[in-house]
Amino acid sequence: MIELGRNRYGKAAIHVVRVARDPGGHRVRDAIVAVALEGDFTAAHTDGDNSLVVTTDTMKNTAYAFARDHLDGSIEAYGRALAEHFLEFEQVDRATVNVREHLWRPIEVGGQPARDAFLRGGEGIRIATVAATRAETTVEAGVEDLVAMKTTRSAFSGFPRDRYTTLPETEDRLMATRITAIWRYGSPDLDFDATFGAVRQTLLEVFADHDSPSVQTSIWIMARAILERHEAVEEVRMVLPNLHHWLVDLTPFGMTNQGEVYVSTTEPHGLIEATVRRSDSA
Amino acid sequence: MIELGRNRYGKAAIHVVRVARDPGGHRVRDAIVAVALEGDFTAAHTDGDNSLVVTTDTMKNTAYAFARDHLDGSIEAYGRALAEHFLEFEQVDRATVNVREHLWRPIEVGGQPARDAFLRGGEGIRIATVAATRAETTVEAGVEDLVAMKTTRSAFSGFPRDRYTTLPETEDRLMATRITAIWRYGSPDLDFDATFGAVRQTLLEVFADHDSPSVQTSIWIMARAILERHEAVEEVRMVLPNLHHWLVDLTPFGMTNQGEVYVSTTEPHGLIEATVRRSDSA
Amino acid sequence: MIELGRNRYGKAAIHVVRVARDPGGHRVRDAIVAVALEGDFTAAHTDGDNSLVVTTDTMKNTAYAFARDHLDGSIEAYGRALAEHFLEFEQVDRATVNVREHLWRPIEVGGQPARDAFLRGGEGIRIATVAATRAETTVEAGVEDLVAMKTTRSAFSGFPRDRYTTLPETEDRLMATRITAIWRYGSPDLDFDATFGAVRQTLLEVFADHDSPSVQTSIWIMARAILERHEAVEEVRMVLPNLHHWLVDLTPFGMTNQGEVYVSTTEPHGLIEATVRRSDSA
Amino acid sequence: MIELGRNRYGKAAIHVVRVARDPGGHRVRDAIVAVALEGDFTAAHTDGDNSLVVTTDTMKNTAYAFARDHLDGSIEAYGRALAEHFLEFEQVDRATVNVREHLWRPIEVGGQPARDAFLRGGEGIRIATVAATRAETTVEAGVEDLVAMKTTRSAFSGFPRDRYTTLPETEDRLMATRITAIWRYGSPDLDFDATFGAVRQTLLEVFADHDSPSVQTSIWIMARAILERHEAVEEVRMVLPNLHHWLVDLTPFGMTNQGEVYVSTTEPHGLIEATVRRSDSA
Repeated sequence: MIELGRNRYGKAAIHVVRVARDPGGHRVRDAIVAVALEGDFTAAHTDGDNSLVVTTDTMKNTAYAFARDHLDGSIEAYGRALAEHFLEFEQVDRATVNVREHLWRPIEVGGQPARDAFLRGGEGIRIATVAATRAETTVEAGVEDLVAMKTTRSAFSGFPRDRYTTLPETEDRLMATRITAIWRYGSPDLDFDATFGAVRQTLLEVFADHDSPSVQTSIWIMARAILERHEAVEEVRMVLPNLHHWLVDLTPFGMTNQGEVYVSTTEPHGLIEATVRRSDSA
Repeated sequence: MIELGRNRYGKAAIHVVRVARDPGGHRVRDAIVAVALEGDFTAAHTDGDNSLVVTTDTMKNTAYAFARDHLDGSIEAYGRALAEHFLEFEQVDRATVNVREHLWRPIEVGGQPARDAFLRGGEGIRIATVAATRAETTVEAGVEDLVAMKTTRSAFSGFPRDRYTTLPETEDRLMATRITAIWRYGSPDLDFDATFGAVRQTLLEVFADHDSPSVQTSIWIMARAILERHEAVEEVRMVLPNLHHWLVDLTPFGMTNQGEVYVSTTEPHGLIEATVRRSDSA
Repeated sequence: MIELGRNRYGKAAIHVVRVARDPGGHRVRDAIVAVALEGDFTAAHTDGDNSLVVTTDTMKNTAYAFARDHLDGSIEAYGRALAEHFLEFEQVDRATVNVREHLWRPIEVGGQPARDAFLRGGEGIRIATVAATRAETTVEAGVEDLVAMKTTRSAFSGFPRDRYTTLPETEDRLMATRITAIWRYGSPDLDFDATFGAVRQTLLEVFADHDSPSVQTSIWIMARAILERHEAVEEVRMVLPNLHHWLVDLTPFGMTNQGEVYVSTTEPHGLIEATVRRSDSA
Repeated sequence: MIELGRNRYGKAAIHVVRVARDPGGHRVRDAIVAVALEGDFTAAHTDGDNSLVVTTDTMKNTAYAFARDHLDGSIEAYGRALAEHFLEFEQVDRATVNVREHLWRPIEVGGQPARDAFLRGGEGIRIATVAATRAETTVEAGVEDLVAMKTTRSAFSGFPRDRYTTLPETEDRLMATRITAIWRYGSPDLDFDATFGAVRQTLLEVFADHDSPSVQTSIWIMARAILERHEAVEEVRMVLPNLHHWLVDLTPFGMTNQGEVYVSTTEPHGLIEATVRRSDSA
């Protein structure tokens, strides 16, 4: 009468740093890895039978060991190697590896990049998620925590009003958001670093360059541009909080405020999510 | 060739406090509310047409207004009232309201509860999620951030070993976790406060009282007990991090350590998730 | 022409859990420890000479080792043992040990406390700071993150108004705060657990039981009561954010709001700090 | 017998964004402001007398109003204007304004900076603290949350060993830290933006370019260079956590690890603080 439904388990927050010590200058990959497995684990739940339970400690060790040979390159390739490794266990039907990468750049000394000193960037985190089953391997890439702002060319009007509506219409507001954008590739074999950089640049350029009648439309415009310009991408999913910046009323102090002083808030915030895809996508 | 897929939008982090000023003593409900709507919003994305977009500012106002008449009672009833209100908009197919409640208890003065002073508790957050469509209203309840520990009666052994396995087997370890448990009710009409308290108590009692051969089995044992003892519950979903506490090797300092001194860690951590349900559940 | 000024170093975020396995029931102490040393460390800075630098890794090991013999009791006694140990190094003039303790209570099963299962409480964190020099050892105790609210009996009026003042006067507001209270003991030898519990109870009772004309006055009333009732305490320092709860204007929705619905905010917040002491204190 | 000691109060977390809408391109200043006042506030504590209490709400309004006229320039100048304004109240002896600034840069579109779209940087936060009394105005500037790493040229050896020491000596380790550096200027009138940029660049260049025998020595070397190269600076205070990166032992997996794979940890961490100053400084 009582049964086990969907289940998965793994190790999260494995924080591994891979240093490539090239003669011309070191390179740093800083990855926070999460592994999750699904498969034949019913007895592990209902009978306390651990005989098929690949331990999460082993997942951690494997993530370290694979970092040596696979994290010299892209996080997508590293994630794929890990996911396909765990699929070698018969009892595993699906292995998912998520990697969140902090980006480091060489410090500039006298206009030249240092060969062995780095600064961690904060313009968003790079994401890769690889899900491997015996049928297919799916690779998603993306960014999160990319905080961006349009100081004009953002409007919000024409919306319906009811008893609880007090918001005035506006043809010119400040729009600020913390972008999460995840895109799915059609192939598990790509030049992942180059493609990531190109898609991220499209995202930013279109964010900067469009007129926004709403956050919903902004998602559509940015996602559509990514799909139009990058045929490697099959689908784009975006989650955009609307981090409201309210124009301060300075008239009590005898001052005007023509788009100069805003209160920056995070709570409450709008939250807009949408997926945009090629029509022939699943 | 490019189309809009799944989308939703709403307002999050609406933090409302409802004080009931009963003559015998005040009561406080402290709710962080998130509203999300799905429905006929394609034109809002593709055409910049906001004519059907109930603004997220209106959602916030509605959450405040409904707090007056509906948050005197349970967060589930409040969530339901809000969700069903938003479904009155024709263009909305599905309204989801999530409420996270911080619990406050009266401060004790001379052994008696104060009538107008409160302390915020930290033994977990209460959760309710109500999803309303024209076909049905679904209510989930639960807890998160409930940090619990078993100092014995937890083992982990009998697992497979491969090239990357270094973990020793143990028949007696310290198990610590931060419990997220969400359960779905079969009906949208219940004494939600009483049922929540009873299910939470079962969860804690079984956590305390069982022998654990693995986190997976602990989920099964706790969730099964909830289903067996509470017929209002149809399904239980649990997410348990394994917050590793490593026994410190004190032998370099000439000391024994028989289950006395542990390092508490949060990174990396195991992460075990499972759903347990009645067999006739969807 | 350039010289070293004040300096100190140490290890922070040492998270150690001590389990006492008494036959009648286990007990848990959960301590986050920070050690800082001051002394003859000029050459360590200016000459790269580490010959007097007790390593922070050694501090961590010592904190673990001392947990076995000293953390069975109060965090103040543990902190004192550690601080006085580090003072045994000739080059150390001052050793400061700060301990932040999460409190765990046994889970209740059938009305009885479980002997080996615990829930972490959230009603504030207990703090102890011990500073040892060759002249004296000073012990401070306290709480932080104790979130409390008065739903009435709090006013704020009679303040001056200038060109930038828009706040209306109020005789009845909701006052919420996250209490940090640190008190200094006159002696390093006390029944620290009992004294801590008694002072914390005074703090809460007076918080609940007084009429507040301002946060400043509330600090004075609470701190004075602690000094009056607990002769072991020489000085009390409090830091109280004023976590504003604004009464929502529901009149646009045709509703009254007589102290029922508030928006809870954390940014911006007032921040009120004061020290209250016996007149003969330093 | 009981008296009020040191006290201060103010408003914190005032988050104001100032947009300068220059024809050639907008500029954004994003400031989180905290104001604190000290002075004749004894009666506010002991008598509930608010007649001298400049309200924290007024501080917030003033911060908004001053943003219009003063935050077009540097945060130091804005902080100074605010601090000196609050000193105009007779009862105020000392006004301290702390500003934390998130830096935004224009998004690049086709190699050109956008005129109205920005990305928030994450390479540290800029800090200014201005303290004004009737005798003097002191300006401090600095950075925090600047996460940096040296992949070589960092050693730690020659330290003393005792019973609790297990750390091996190393001539080549990875050093990572989250830099907080605060420097005090000799004058309240400077080209603050240019000076800040120049000092920050010195900090980074010297971080990159020196050989480190310990974190203590690194502070000395960096701070001394700042003082030597920037005569506007009187004193430098640095707080450097040592965010340990441990070389993973891959030998159980039959692999070498020659400075390639590290575990990144934040707990526990070393914490090294020092002030370096001109000898004639106070």
